[in-house]
Amino acid sequence: MSDAPTPRTRVRRLPELGVYDRAQVEAIVDEALYCHLAWVADDGDPRVIPTIHARVGDTLYVHGSSASSTLLAIKAGLPVAVAITIVDGIRFARSMFEHSMNYRTVVVFGIAQEVTDPDELSRVFTAITEQVAPGRSADARPPTPDEIRQTTIVKIPLDECSAKVSEGFPEESDEDLALDVWAGILPLRIAPGEPLDDPLLRPDIPRPAYVTAWHRDDVR
Amino acid sequence: MSDAPTPRTRVRRLPELGVYDRAQVEAIVDEALYCHLAWVADDGDPRVIPTIHARVGDTLYVHGSSASSTLLAIKAGLPVAVAITIVDGIRFARSMFEHSMNYRTVVVFGIAQEVTDPDELSRVFTAITEQVAPGRSADARPPTPDEIRQTTIVKIPLDECSAKVSEGFPEESDEDLALDVWAGILPLRIAPGEPLDDPLLRPDIPRPAYVTAWHRDDVR
Repeated sequence: MSDAPTPRTRVRRLPELGVYDRAQVEAIVDEALYCHLAWVADDGDPRVIPTIHARVGDTLYVHGSSASSTLLAIKAGLPVAVAITIVDGIRFARSMFEHSMNYRTVVVFGIAQEVTDPDELSRVFTAITEQVAPGRSADARPPTPDEIRQTTIVKIPLDECSAKVSEGFPEESDEDLALDVWAGILPLRIAPGEPLDDPLLRPDIPRPAYVTAWHRDDVR
Repeated sequence: MSDAPTPRTRVRRLPELGVYDRAQVEAIVDEALYCHLAWVADDGDPRVIPTIHARVGDTLYVHGSSASSTLLAIKAGLPVAVAITIVDGIRFARSMFEHSMNYRTVVVFGIAQEVTDPDELSRVFTAITEQVAPGRSADARPPTPDEIRQTTIVKIPLDECSAKVSEGFPEESDEDLALDVWAGILPLRIAPGEPLDDPLLRPDIPRPAYVTAWHRDDVR
C-alpha cells in the first residue's frame, strides 16, 4: 500500500481499508455505473447529485447537466468531491454492531473545469456512452455541434484520490460466535432485467448483444 | 405535484421531473439500500461518502462513523446534503445525446445533529438493520451500551427534500426515429447472489429466509 496523496484522502477510520494503489482506484472508477458529485453552493452549503462519469487516462469526466445551474458558473474552477461506489454485498454478523456492507469506493477531490473544446467533448460523449454500455458508441448517432453545446461536462484530474475497500466476513468475539444466529455474506450486484424495446422501434431492428449480454463485473 | 419546499430543492433542469409528493419521497428513501452524505469540511471544500440510512417518521438517520473525523465535531449541527439514488435502468436512445439513466433520487438538505440518547440510538440500530435486511433485527444481537457509544449516527429532519424521477422511453425526432439503431430500456436492479456462509458458522444454523429471499423492489 502506498501513501495517501494528501491528508484528506487518507482513510481515517479503519485505516487498514485504505487503498491508494492507482490500478485499484482506476478499476473501481471504470467498473462503476454512476457516481455522486458534491460541491459547495453560493450559500455555503453542500450539494450532491447522482450523475455519470468516465475516465480517460488521468482525467475523470463527469456529466454535469443536471447540476448546471451551479456548474455553468464554474468555468473558473470549482472544488468538488466525487464519490464512486460499488456495493458488493451485505455482511451479516451475529451482532448488529458488526454488520456492514462490503463495498468499494473511490473519492476524488479536485478543481472541476468545464470542458469547452468540441473535440474533447466529442471524445467524452463516446467515453461516457461506453462507460454505461460498452459497445453502444459504435451504433448510436454521435452528437451534433448543437447537442455538444447543450451539454455540460466537467473534468477533474485524478490526482487527489483514494479508494476504500471493505470485504470479507465479519470478525466477532468468541462469545458472539457461539450465538444461535446465522452469519455470512449476501453478495449483491447490479443486474439487468429483460430489455424493453422502444414502442417506436422499427420492427426489423434486433436487440444488440451489448444490451442482451450487458453486465458489470462478476459477483465478488 | 406540490410546490418545492425551498428554492434549492426545486429541480432546475428538466423541472417536469421534479417530485415533491411526500409519499413518493418516502418510498424512495425507504427502498434505497444506501445513500451519499455530503458536507463542507473545515477547509471549505466538499466531502462526500457512501453510507447507510433509515427513515423513522419525519427523520432521516444516517450512519456517520466512516466520516467521524468530521461528524464527531458536529454536535452543534452541520449543514449536510444527502443523496439517495435508485438506478432503474439504462435508456438507450438512437442518438448519444438522448441516452439517459432511468432513476429515482431524493436529495435532503438540513442540519445534521448527532444522536446521543441511548434509547434513540438503540431504535436507530434496529431501523438501519431493517433498512438493509428486513427481518434481521429479530435475530441479531442488539448493541451493548459500549457499542452504542462507539457508533456515530446523525439525524436530519425530512423537511427540505425533493425527489427527481427519470423514467420511460427516449423521446426522439422523426429523423432519429428512422435511424438503423436499437432503442429501448435495459431495466437494472440490485440483485442478490448465492449467500456465503461465514467460515465459522455453526453447522446447525440454517440460512434465514430474509437472506435467501432478500430483494429490493421489483424491476421497473
